[in-house]
Amino acid sequence: MFKIRSLVTALALVGSISVASALEVLPTVAPAPADNPTTAEKVELGQLLYHDPRLSSTGTVSCSSCHNTMLGGEDNRPNSMGVNGQTGGRSAPTVWNAAFNAVQFWDGRAPSLEAQAAGPVTNPIEMGMKSWDDVVARLNTIEGYQVAFEKAFGKDSISKDNATKAIAAYERTLITPNSPFDKYVSGDKSALTEQQVRGLNKAQELGCTGCHSGPAFNGPGLFLPFPIHSNPVYAAKYHFKDDKGLAEVTKKAEDEHRWKVPTLRNIALTAPYFHNGSVKTLDEAVVVMAKTQLDKDLSKEEIADIVAFLNSLTGEFPKQKMPVLPATPGSTFN
Amino acid sequence: MFKIRSLVTALALVGSISVASALEVLPTVAPAPADNPTTAEKVELGQLLYHDPRLSSTGTVSCSSCHNTMLGGEDNRPNSMGVNGQTGGRSAPTVWNAAFNAVQFWDGRAPSLEAQAAGPVTNPIEMGMKSWDDVVARLNTIEGYQVAFEKAFGKDSISKDNATKAIAAYERTLITPNSPFDKYVSGDKSALTEQQVRGLNKAQELGCTGCHSGPAFNGPGLFLPFPIHSNPVYAAKYHFKDDKGLAEVTKKAEDEHRWKVPTLRNIALTAPYFHNGSVKTLDEAVVVMAKTQLDKDLSKEEIADIVAFLNSLTGEFPKQKMPVLPATPGSTFN
Repeated sequence: MFKIRSLVTALALVGSISVASALEVLPTVAPAPADNPTTAEKVELGQLLYHDPRLSSTGTVSCSSCHNTMLGGEDNRPNSMGVNGQTGGRSAPTVWNAAFNAVQFWDGRAPSLEAQAAGPVTNPIEMGMKSWDDVVARLNTIEGYQVAFEKAFGKDSISKDNATKAIAAYERTLITPNSPFDKYVSGDKSALTEQQVRGLNKAQELGCTGCHSGPAFNGPGLFLPFPIHSNPVYAAKYHFKDDKGLAEVTKKAEDEHRWKVPTLRNIALTAPYFHNGSVKTLDEAVVVMAKTQLDKDLSKEEIADIVAFLNSLTGEFPKQKMPVLPATPGSTFN
Repeated sequence: MFKIRSLVTALALVGSISVASALEVLPTVAPAPADNPTTAEKVELGQLLYHDPRLSSTGTVSCSSCHNTMLGGEDNRPNSMGVNGQTGGRSAPTVWNAAFNAVQFWDGRAPSLEAQAAGPVTNPIEMGMKSWDDVVARLNTIEGYQVAFEKAFGKDSISKDNATKAIAAYERTLITPNSPFDKYVSGDKSALTEQQVRGLNKAQELGCTGCHSGPAFNGPGLFLPFPIHSNPVYAAKYHFKDDKGLAEVTKKAEDEHRWKVPTLRNIALTAPYFHNGSVKTLDEAVVVMAKTQLDKDLSKEEIADIVAFLNSLTGEFPKQKMPVLPATPGSTFN
């Protein structure tokens, strides 16, 4: 997944990533990998698992605790709070439209939703389970899960592989189409205000959509440097460089401070911003990005226009039923 | 609310509370107080507030975190985990059918769902908000809540009083009818197994339903002593007497170790058991109750029969839509 990095670096250096790209409507169906075709049964099981706090050591943290499907797909916190009140250094990315990310996690270390879903469950400061074997053992004691896994994957199929496949299948349904932007691109020119159109044009002109490209404004899975232009004020205020990004995984100097390009879809709903959640407002996030990535100082009007455009990327949230999680009659894990 | 206590004590002493009472079907509609008639708009708002973690200081704990509407209305933990991983000494009572409790909290200190709803939000180890003024200020910054409160209560109506009324109105819809027991009582004699009927009869004969009376098996709001019969084994193992119950509120010696009678509805789904969640299984809970309250040693068959009966009290959970919580575009509290 790190192969195209050098190409991107080259593109970034010659400035050609700032060329405006065609505007694309968000697809309403997410592509699924060949070994995990989406089925209704998997989606149903995945919704259960996604919302089940019993996938955590304390029974208090589910996927949805930090990637909240009732909100903007995350927790509106600088960093998430896992089991026993523990917090990490990064801000939870939104689950909405995560299906359109080529890679997952801020550092892009997971090449798929399936791979991503396996991580937090056994992370000691997130969901804190000792091992996936423990998760599987726990799920096996819940008759309702035996039934739901059988429907989705066949008899006696509770496993890490199938649990993460089901969660990923569910996440592929978490798409927010029909934003004002999508309606505009589909031909309804009244869907955006004049200010939003100005903001869209400005974002393209400045080069924002060079990296934030494609229908989800998240690029094709490249690892880009951030911040490109060091700024002592922001360094002191936001500590962007405390976290080395991709290099924390690869341990390579050339990967330091490289990050996945996050989606701009529903960006208005996912404050605070950046990998460490250090920037509280969308206005400031726009100012910081322009300065650190493009070395531009925006006027007040430009900031307001771009923020207005970004607000047009808030989509429609699909109607979901509240899951009824399978019970463990007469006993508990805790 | 403490007036009828001495009557109950008298009843308990003369043993007349063990007289079998008529079997009653769970009502499908909960009574609402005169000053808070249930409306669709209040229920809708209440569902939002109930599931909104932004009602906690950290933005991580909602009412549903501990009283989980996707599970048995609680968290399957001995004690709940509030903000920053803090835990208290009591086990979260189920929200399902709480509308039929005459009093709320284990110690019955709240005379209504409205009064109950106000408590955890500002409890430092639960949801941790400094004050309801802070909650109201926060809600006022969320445009979607301004709209939802206006629909439910009129213009500029965000207040502690209205928030708790809305939450209570929502909770009055959290009823689980049509359990096998209800079907049986309604005339479908095949709804219970022979073992469950034996268990029901035994529970009445022993006197369980003397206190656990009425359609929700939670009595008319009495404060009963627990444990009545001290038992050194249980004292060492389960520490029932570490918590003084009602006396923690009233500071009166006569109220020590008095508790609200909890509902038996969905009891199979709410392990672990008792006010401190110290008993892990329903089987053991039955054994303990028989010994501590009735001074009876049950046979294995009697235990199994009563547990089978208690499993017949698991009702049907209403279909709910997943709420879409109002957003705070471009900013956050955290």
